[in-house]
Amino acid sequence: MEACTFLSPTRLVIGRDAEAQTPHWIRQEGCSRVLVHHDSGYVKQSGLVDRIIALLREDGLTVVELGGVVPNPRLALVREGICVCRENQIDFLLAVGGGSVIDSCKAIGLGVAYDGDVWDFFAEKDGVPMAVPTRSLPIGVVLTIAATGSEASNSCVVTNGDLKRFCDNDVNRPRFAIENPLLTCSLPPFQTACGIVDIMSHSMERYFTCEEGGNYLTDALCEAVFRTCLTCAPILRENPQNYQARANVMVASSLSHNGLTGIGRTGDWASHFIEHELSGEFDVTHGAGLAVIIPAWMRYVWPERPNLFLAFATRVMGVEADMDHPELTIQEGIRRLEDFFRSMGLPTRLRDMPGVGRVDERIMEKMARRVRTVHADGSIGWVKRLYTKDIVVIFQLAQ
Amino acid sequence: MEACTFLSPTRLVIGRDAEAQTPHWIRQEGCSRVLVHHDSGYVKQSGLVDRIIALLREDGLTVVELGGVVPNPRLALVREGICVCRENQIDFLLAVGGGSVIDSCKAIGLGVAYDGDVWDFFAEKDGVPMAVPTRSLPIGVVLTIAATGSEASNSCVVTNGDLKRFCDNDVNRPRFAIENPLLTCSLPPFQTACGIVDIMSHSMERYFTCEEGGNYLTDALCEAVFRTCLTCAPILRENPQNYQARANVMVASSLSHNGLTGIGRTGDWASHFIEHELSGEFDVTHGAGLAVIIPAWMRYVWPERPNLFLAFATRVMGVEADMDHPELTIQEGIRRLEDFFRSMGLPTRLRDMPGVGRVDERIMEKMARRVRTVHADGSIGWVKRLYTKDIVVIFQLAQ
Repeated sequence: MEACTFLSPTRLVIGRDAEAQTPHWIRQEGCSRVLVHHDSGYVKQSGLVDRIIALLREDGLTVVELGGVVPNPRLALVREGICVCRENQIDFLLAVGGGSVIDSCKAIGLGVAYDGDVWDFFAEKDGVPMAVPTRSLPIGVVLTIAATGSEASNSCVVTNGDLKRFCDNDVNRPRFAIENPLLTCSLPPFQTACGIVDIMSHSMERYFTCEEGGNYLTDALCEAVFRTCLTCAPILRENPQNYQARANVMVASSLSHNGLTGIGRTGDWASHFIEHELSGEFDVTHGAGLAVIIPAWMRYVWPERPNLFLAFATRVMGVEADMDHPELTIQEGIRRLEDFFRSMGLPTRLRDMPGVGRVDERIMEKMARRVRTVHADGSIGWVKRLYTKDIVVIFQLAQ
Repeated sequence: MEACTFLSPTRLVIGRDAEAQTPHWIRQEGCSRVLVHHDSGYVKQSGLVDRIIALLREDGLTVVELGGVVPNPRLALVREGICVCRENQIDFLLAVGGGSVIDSCKAIGLGVAYDGDVWDFFAEKDGVPMAVPTRSLPIGVVLTIAATGSEASNSCVVTNGDLKRFCDNDVNRPRFAIENPLLTCSLPPFQTACGIVDIMSHSMERYFTCEEGGNYLTDALCEAVFRTCLTCAPILRENPQNYQARANVMVASSLSHNGLTGIGRTGDWASHFIEHELSGEFDVTHGAGLAVIIPAWMRYVWPERPNLFLAFATRVMGVEADMDHPELTIQEGIRRLEDFFRSMGLPTRLRDMPGVGRVDERIMEKMARRVRTVHADGSIGWVKRLYTKDIVVIFQLAQ
């Protein structure tokens, strides 16, 4: 267990009709002028946004509405949101939606509390290093998709043209997340599946670490998230309305990315960085991209830390250990993970992804070169340091 | 998964020399006048308290020291602490120690922020119901024993004469907990063992719930805590200095009682209430008392929820399920838990406890009658409603 700080101050408000508590928790923050941010899609058409706005207004809060968030939220709308907040003296941001809406809110919050250009927090400009935020507007969430964990995480991902960039900082953590599992019961199977992959991926990035042993507690916490997803996915395939499975997946979403499963571990995050370029290029859903990238990454890097991948195969995927041929056990574990992803209706190869298909080698190289580097030598990842050429091989394995 | 709110805002600062960050995190709270509270025991003699005080003073903070906390912390010292804080305009409370010191700090914080008598928060007086706190002084912890989880919990237990009473409230949650596993390496085996029982007990109280199924995630989170304790205890028996095992137990302490493992569940807490009377009567260490009460409670209540106890036996204690005779599997699980407690050097019967021995039936009845009731009908517990006569039977089973 490595030295670390763990902080997760987000209040989770869980249960049927939990959204009725939204005005109360905004009042608790001492705020009264609320921007309600959403994607103008199902959450608006279903009447949820209007219902929340009515609740806030009944409580005497001032509300301004801003819809239009798209998957992989765009910088342009963030800039518009910053202007709207300033014009209306907004003091609280309420995201009604999933990861994209929450991240758009987080970026707006950073921008409102900053004199410069909000993109300074996401990318270098003319050799000037990225800015580090020190404050934001307070944010609350009414969660409608269990997936990104953004409702309790410090991370914020925004897309500008074909650049998908992130800003991780504790000021991004929402004050509260309203988690009513019923709000996720009408999600189509594809969104449910992508969400489950995303939830698993946040603990997988932390589970596969460069440390050798000694993480008994967080190993088991990660495995708790994995097993919950493996248990709930088939229940939801059979019956998308199953309240208990929806509730478990929803809370797993928050706990998988609030830092809990990474206490004392060095997360790898290479699969995420690689997938960010894939969805930046092809605009695929993040979870669907991960279902393709993660197995390819596992196949490429497992020889660096066989014991970790053996633990995953046996303790999570239920493979019987063949200690004479541990490599067979590991490979069977990866195969079963792919089978699980496919059982939810997701492709596990680039060529099977709608809108992607066979990817030209030059596109792979372009995406690989664009991956944001982590280490000074230009590589990413901790289980194995990955350079541009390694990332191209992972794309090839995913083909 | 039942409706609930989960909040755990305590920052965990984990690692070797983590205590060097103490002044920084006090400054972050905007505070400058610190009461350093401790038990005048090993933490003082080892030089730790003086080292912390020197760190704070080097940073320009004003420090007042108050030692003398005893196990099952006493109301008299709490009252003294409240006076000391008022006389010295203290704005931050720093507990250097374990659960007793932290709880004494919490009670002092409640008292300083309240005009009336602090005991109002812990007991009815002349028919006036208990007061509910709305604020406290900010509290930080330098943790030296992994056990009670008080460093991240909302609970505070104080003893007044032979009355041991609690006040659970979110205002009690510390702002930060400094967790340097090296500070626990010199704990004697008895304290280590009592701590491990206490840590397990906080998730056991939540694991054994009145709900039937559907808690996939928190079942697995509880089991993660149990397995971490089962793994680390023998390592620490062999080598009390093992850093990784100390670190895992320390973080398990915080996560087992910050509410995480109880998300969406109704905790039982009968064993704790019964043990509180045992340690109120005989002044035994809380964890040692639990090692006696928990198995007796399990033997008495398991027929109410056999599936839960079967899951515990098979998934935690590693008993192979005999589905023709599940009661044998359950009983074997309880036996193995007792074996585990004994393997750490703890008695699992009242008659074997130093300072207790054979307990007279009238003393059992006196303790049973004194248990603070939970339900309107005078009973406690959720797995099975326990009345005075049931509690006497549990004491008899523990004899």
